[in-house]
Amino acid sequence: MHPVAEPGLGADDARLIEGVLGGQRRALAKAITLAESSRPDHQQRAAAVLDALLPRTGNSIRVGITGVPGVGKSTFIECLGLHLIDAGHRIAVLAVDPSSTVSGGSILGDKTRMEELSHREEAFIRPSPSAGALGGVAEKTREAMLLCEAAGFDVIVVETVGVGQSETTVAGMTDIFVVLQLPNAGDDLQAIKKGVIELADLVVFNKADIDGPAADAAVAQMKSALSLLRPGSEHWRPPVLKVSAAKSSGIAEMWATVERYQATMSAAGEFEARRHRQATAWMWQLIDSGLRHRFRDHPGIRAALPGVAAAVEAGETTPTSAAHRLLNQLNRFF
Amino acid sequence: MHPVAEPGLGADDARLIEGVLGGQRRALAKAITLAESSRPDHQQRAAAVLDALLPRTGNSIRVGITGVPGVGKSTFIECLGLHLIDAGHRIAVLAVDPSSTVSGGSILGDKTRMEELSHREEAFIRPSPSAGALGGVAEKTREAMLLCEAAGFDVIVVETVGVGQSETTVAGMTDIFVVLQLPNAGDDLQAIKKGVIELADLVVFNKADIDGPAADAAVAQMKSALSLLRPGSEHWRPPVLKVSAAKSSGIAEMWATVERYQATMSAAGEFEARRHRQATAWMWQLIDSGLRHRFRDHPGIRAALPGVAAAVEAGETTPTSAAHRLLNQLNRFF
Repeated sequence: MHPVAEPGLGADDARLIEGVLGGQRRALAKAITLAESSRPDHQQRAAAVLDALLPRTGNSIRVGITGVPGVGKSTFIECLGLHLIDAGHRIAVLAVDPSSTVSGGSILGDKTRMEELSHREEAFIRPSPSAGALGGVAEKTREAMLLCEAAGFDVIVVETVGVGQSETTVAGMTDIFVVLQLPNAGDDLQAIKKGVIELADLVVFNKADIDGPAADAAVAQMKSALSLLRPGSEHWRPPVLKVSAAKSSGIAEMWATVERYQATMSAAGEFEARRHRQATAWMWQLIDSGLRHRFRDHPGIRAALPGVAAAVEAGETTPTSAAHRLLNQLNRFF
Repeated sequence: MHPVAEPGLGADDARLIEGVLGGQRRALAKAITLAESSRPDHQQRAAAVLDALLPRTGNSIRVGITGVPGVGKSTFIECLGLHLIDAGHRIAVLAVDPSSTVSGGSILGDKTRMEELSHREEAFIRPSPSAGALGGVAEKTREAMLLCEAAGFDVIVVETVGVGQSETTVAGMTDIFVVLQLPNAGDDLQAIKKGVIELADLVVFNKADIDGPAADAAVAQMKSALSLLRPGSEHWRPPVLKVSAAKSSGIAEMWATVERYQATMSAAGEFEARRHRQATAWMWQLIDSGLRHRFRDHPGIRAALPGVAAAVEAGETTPTSAAHRLLNQLNRFF
């Protein structure tokens, strides 16, 4: 294979691109590491690599999965992954969590986690990048997602244990957002975080085999709760399913529901529309945070902000006049 | 009374301040109109008046109320207002809705709305300002709220029919957020908008007398839904109440619950903390939107944005590189 000729691409990066397009896991891992690096030269190379691969991305279904620790997320994802591999899919599992560490974060930290899946050639498992801020983590994960697609993985699972705003972030980068619950709903230990129930395209109760009646009650309660909410799409009302990952029961039905979702939303044009909305929203999110950073770095603002913020806190000035006073520190365009 | 000497205050504005502090409704109305004006000189005067009155603000409980048309919001608020006046309170009713018009918006538009309350000396009713954007409306309403407090109104009701993000905006400027519902929950006509149920500090089912069993079922369903959500405060779990505004039943209990909320949250230090968070968040919201405006006005951005945005939409570039490309158009600090 001859390396693709790309402006601003070194031979190494051209080979890297070939490797990713060839579905080589080592090349994919290297490309993701490059994208995760904070070194400016790495950033530049990663951007060039991504732009070169971009035309080969997008051919996957991006599945966001959230669930608190103990809900059996790893077992569920491993079970789903093996099911998908048997069905001829290639699955990549990425994690979004600011808390995770360089040492491997929420995934590799636990050696036994998804052990069988991690040994399968058709699977690629990547822990959360170590960037501290969720924004940074999410940005890296979005890029990792694109790289996995370029490497031919047609199912991308992005999982989160739900730190900070991570559910919103993951729902904002995936095609379908799945909330994993335990049958003992209402229990504070796993009560749904504010806003998360609104994000769910699909709610799945795991470990439903342990206590049948409790699971049925939980399903009914969740359906009732969802019925109180205006659905996000006129074409889809979030279903509530029961599975038992440990016993591999309900997994096929769960995936059939995901495929039904994809078919329904694609037919309605909402599948592509959601991706476009996500891309545009993400661009503006990055712009806003970039502007916020520059604002805080501005000498005039750095000098004035502490006093003004304190005055607002103390109720000595209105947020409105405080904001205007600060913005007036900037020149005409900024 | 001698006008307060304030730097940058004309004699008119000094009189206006005295009038507001004296609780004169005409002065209050004039001050709000000044704050709502978009004329730069009016804005400047309004800011000076507000800063002068600021020390006299904050001595109220700010009650946000949302409910779809037909839920009986006006009847409920009028009934509540008359109850509060009998109890020795002075109540101001403000509306937040971008849709409302200069002609009087959602309140004065309807002649019969809160007719009895509007004739009471102890009540002040103000329609939504006509500023188009919700941000603008909300900013004006926040200032009107402060002016009402300076005028001695100790209960401020901010209501919204829930246009766009208005519930979040109202919850973000009030001490307690009340969601008014009809017993026939689940009905799409009044299904709760995404995120709104999460904002509720108190849920009230109105017209509960019409069909008792239906109301009880709705209350149970709502309690069940709320139990799925992690409470916003460890000190308060949103209660669900039944009232019948038309029959003035349940109103006293509803207000007793609001007072219990204020006592509980104040004791926990959360009442003040919420106001401080709101003020700081509002300042940053204004800063962000100000930065966004300046960004869009920047000549380099104006030239580049359409093409870059289209490329992101079309998936020809990543949101990340698009954002960086645009931000690089700005100079060091902006």
